[in-house]
Amino acid sequence: MKHRHVIDLEDLTFAQLQQTIELAGKIKADPVKYSHVCDGKIMATLFYEPSTRTQMSFQTAMMRLGGKIIGFDNPQNSSVSKGESLKDTITIVSGYADIIAMRNPVEGSAKAASLYSSVPVINAGDGGHLHPTQTLTDLVTLSNEKGRLNHLKIGLCGDLKNGRTVHSLIKTMSHFEGNSFVLISTKELSIPDYIKDIMDKAGCPYEEVDDLQSNIADLDVLYMTRIQRERFASEEDYQAQKGQYILDTEKMSYAKKDMIVLHPLPRVDEITVEVDDDPRACYFKQAVYGMYGRMALIMLLLEDKDYFFHSNDKKFISDVKCKNPRCIVNQEAYLPKKYYLKDNHKICDYCDNEIE
Amino acid sequence: MKHRHVIDLEDLTFAQLQQTIELAGKIKADPVKYSHVCDGKIMATLFYEPSTRTQMSFQTAMMRLGGKIIGFDNPQNSSVSKGESLKDTITIVSGYADIIAMRNPVEGSAKAASLYSSVPVINAGDGGHLHPTQTLTDLVTLSNEKGRLNHLKIGLCGDLKNGRTVHSLIKTMSHFEGNSFVLISTKELSIPDYIKDIMDKAGCPYEEVDDLQSNIADLDVLYMTRIQRERFASEEDYQAQKGQYILDTEKMSYAKKDMIVLHPLPRVDEITVEVDDDPRACYFKQAVYGMYGRMALIMLLLEDKDYFFHSNDKKFISDVKCKNPRCIVNQEAYLPKKYYLKDNHKICDYCDNEIE
Amino acid sequence: MKHRHVIDLEDLTFAQLQQTIELAGKIKADPVKYSHVCDGKIMATLFYEPSTRTQMSFQTAMMRLGGKIIGFDNPQNSSVSKGESLKDTITIVSGYADIIAMRNPVEGSAKAASLYSSVPVINAGDGGHLHPTQTLTDLVTLSNEKGRLNHLKIGLCGDLKNGRTVHSLIKTMSHFEGNSFVLISTKELSIPDYIKDIMDKAGCPYEEVDDLQSNIADLDVLYMTRIQRERFASEEDYQAQKGQYILDTEKMSYAKKDMIVLHPLPRVDEITVEVDDDPRACYFKQAVYGMYGRMALIMLLLEDKDYFFHSNDKKFISDVKCKNPRCIVNQEAYLPKKYYLKDNHKICDYCDNEIE
Repeated sequence: MKHRHVIDLEDLTFAQLQQTIELAGKIKADPVKYSHVCDGKIMATLFYEPSTRTQMSFQTAMMRLGGKIIGFDNPQNSSVSKGESLKDTITIVSGYADIIAMRNPVEGSAKAASLYSSVPVINAGDGGHLHPTQTLTDLVTLSNEKGRLNHLKIGLCGDLKNGRTVHSLIKTMSHFEGNSFVLISTKELSIPDYIKDIMDKAGCPYEEVDDLQSNIADLDVLYMTRIQRERFASEEDYQAQKGQYILDTEKMSYAKKDMIVLHPLPRVDEITVEVDDDPRACYFKQAVYGMYGRMALIMLLLEDKDYFFHSNDKKFISDVKCKNPRCIVNQEAYLPKKYYLKDNHKICDYCDNEIE
Repeated sequence: MKHRHVIDLEDLTFAQLQQTIELAGKIKADPVKYSHVCDGKIMATLFYEPSTRTQMSFQTAMMRLGGKIIGFDNPQNSSVSKGESLKDTITIVSGYADIIAMRNPVEGSAKAASLYSSVPVINAGDGGHLHPTQTLTDLVTLSNEKGRLNHLKIGLCGDLKNGRTVHSLIKTMSHFEGNSFVLISTKELSIPDYIKDIMDKAGCPYEEVDDLQSNIADLDVLYMTRIQRERFASEEDYQAQKGQYILDTEKMSYAKKDMIVLHPLPRVDEITVEVDDDPRACYFKQAVYGMYGRMALIMLLLEDKDYFFHSNDKKFISDVKCKNPRCIVNQEAYLPKKYYLKDNHKICDYCDNEIE
Repeated sequence: MKHRHVIDLEDLTFAQLQQTIELAGKIKADPVKYSHVCDGKIMATLFYEPSTRTQMSFQTAMMRLGGKIIGFDNPQNSSVSKGESLKDTITIVSGYADIIAMRNPVEGSAKAASLYSSVPVINAGDGGHLHPTQTLTDLVTLSNEKGRLNHLKIGLCGDLKNGRTVHSLIKTMSHFEGNSFVLISTKELSIPDYIKDIMDKAGCPYEEVDDLQSNIADLDVLYMTRIQRERFASEEDYQAQKGQYILDTEKMSYAKKDMIVLHPLPRVDEITVEVDDDPRACYFKQAVYGMYGRMALIMLLLEDKDYFFHSNDKKFISDVKCKNPRCIVNQEAYLPKKYYLKDNHKICDYCDNEIE
């Protein structure tokens, strides 16, 4: 049963990723055919921080496969908060449930949970670290709405510095042939260097610009993200610049007829309500594709004996703890201090930060 | 799919109302027959304020039809409270679920939700405005326990001024032939004039009295309601009068043998515990009838293609907003300022208050 | 339908207890056979205080029998907290559900609930008073892991004074032939006299010791419990003694090869994490046995018409109220002040404390 967890989408082989996306499309085309594949199975949704939409998406996915749900969404109010270790909670819950979807604000917590679970664990978000089913959602949407995952010119707009979903999408899409990126943000919120390195290595063209309207015309896909007031250098900058990153009907008028707009949701005001009526607005459909993506993942984890994830198997035990204060090893003392090597650096196996 | 929502019981035609009540009776008589009609369907119960009893009633109703449940009961703790618009939440949830039951403290919110939902919305209470399934509960109870909805002498006791369920019941029952009302309350808590107008128009006799005991003998139905201490003119009035509005075994001894007692629940102390053992006490049965009423409604909305609601289709868009501070248009800025005309007055289509 | 509730495990006859334990074993051996016995049935889990693990165990048990779940885990946030009596809540919920599992911090509340429920009530913990399904969990574990419930030398370690589960386990196990107990605790936390009386009456040998390591060698079973810092006479005592009550791999090295370790969970630090890898550590398995025990109980209560519980039927009504401030009769005024006689003492039928 080793490695039958989805902690990081990078753990999937290319073939597995395609299998999952294709299955999502098949389920969408004929949902009745799959409505009993998880009969008698139980999913535990363990949400250590509230995320109503993600939780409802997982719950609906499991129910539409015939399964049932246990879990919590409010740990402050539950006995889980009474000092029980993550290990004990996961060991017990994996005695009740057939599969676990866990969201936890601590980085690396899903990986830690997978060490002690006798059933598959899906990472439903571990702090600012990973959120693999969001990226899967984006891929299922692109595949179905554009008909392909390659040869796409993808604009990403907003907070590109802190956007976990943006980084993950670029990482994955840079593996496909012929994709290029237009990175639209203020200087302060521009894409981190390590993501540029990934694009460079993959031989993937990209340009950095600071204006949405003059760059929208060539895009096949526009991926919008939240941009928070406090992220701007000053209130003056915010007032001067914010309009450039708000998608409205005027800006949409410059875009291609078959461009599609994505957004991980929830939005605040970075897309005006009028755009919702434009057939190119795909962010609500995207949520439905997310459900189909999760159905595919659950089904493969529970049903397909060959659906094992590969993973970097070379793991070592360190003497020193990870320095990242938000990492799970700094909260749960019993965890082995695992790391792996990357370009001769020791990388924490939980939160993927450099150890020293 | 237009108008397949239950926002206001007044939206149903007389025939539809009877169809719903009859179906509730049929389900009660043979629940097993209906235990799979919603197999594979999902209801979202979106409770923006807690109402455990109403929520459990909807959930049980859906489950007893074979369906499943997603939703929340605690929005303060959920990501729904993080500033997402009602429109976005409803659009997304209607991509997951087959039907939505929504409770929200803001008046007109269910109507607003129905504008953006691709699946039927049932209003499970929108502030002090409407609560159609409570009135349906009362009708199903009367129909089953009295065998008819006409030629009934109905006493209503307690807070008749603020009682949403009382107003709604009178509005509906005044349409049936031969019904009359005995309105039992203090002067301060007497029935509003607009309800008197409705009874007058319908040619429905009524009398206003201030004492329960001397008026109980003729009643076919006694509808009790909560009466709150702070509603009385003074503490002296409260102490002097409260006993007159508490139903006890002595007062029950003056009532007809086949009178029935209803109460929307929860009660505080307006019915003494001893009355519970009287076979004429129907308020607990009433809760069970409510479940059957909700089963009928869910089933008709999901199954019967001809079960469309009529509605006042003459809607206009206003320049000015509704003045009601508790109305949803004053919280969700993107909503069209819809109104309809009634006796030449402009009435807000969300909260049914006059606009100017 | 009288007495088809599980309030106290003592209400079961010896034969019923064995029937329940045996059924739990049969379900464990062939769960698919039992996966539809509760199809179409609904359990209400009414948790007036959070207990995530117990609630998930009940929910999983019901789901694995084919049933569905309604309920709450957060009464502060629900309308249940708005002054509704326990009687009214239970009366209404028993109109929706087929069986109720209730947890409530007030002693005797489950017994009170059973007076008004038209469906079986299972006590899922009523304050510090009773928690019958925890004891059932222990018995199912012993029966399956040791192959017998008699001729066992059982060590109990930690807080034996306040440990509800410890008292209940001794009471039940003293009825079986050949069992003996080793009671391991500080003087301050030693077993109460009334439990000693029970062992004496049953002719059951026991010894009181203050050290785990020198007493572990002969044990067939070691039942560990939480021991809280504030229970020690002083901080010095705590620092001096705590190590004696922590189970670690060294102490395990002195134990028999077929000894098993139980713990009601959650643990804090009274068992070190290293012990988890010892095959004799059964406390996580125990949680799974608890689920099977609950499945057996639910099934028998819903399916087996002959599974009626006996109970002390000689009940009287008192003039004076129970003096226990944590007893339900002091919170819900309408409750009859029931008591029974034991050795000529009047014992409160709700909380089992002496009335005068």
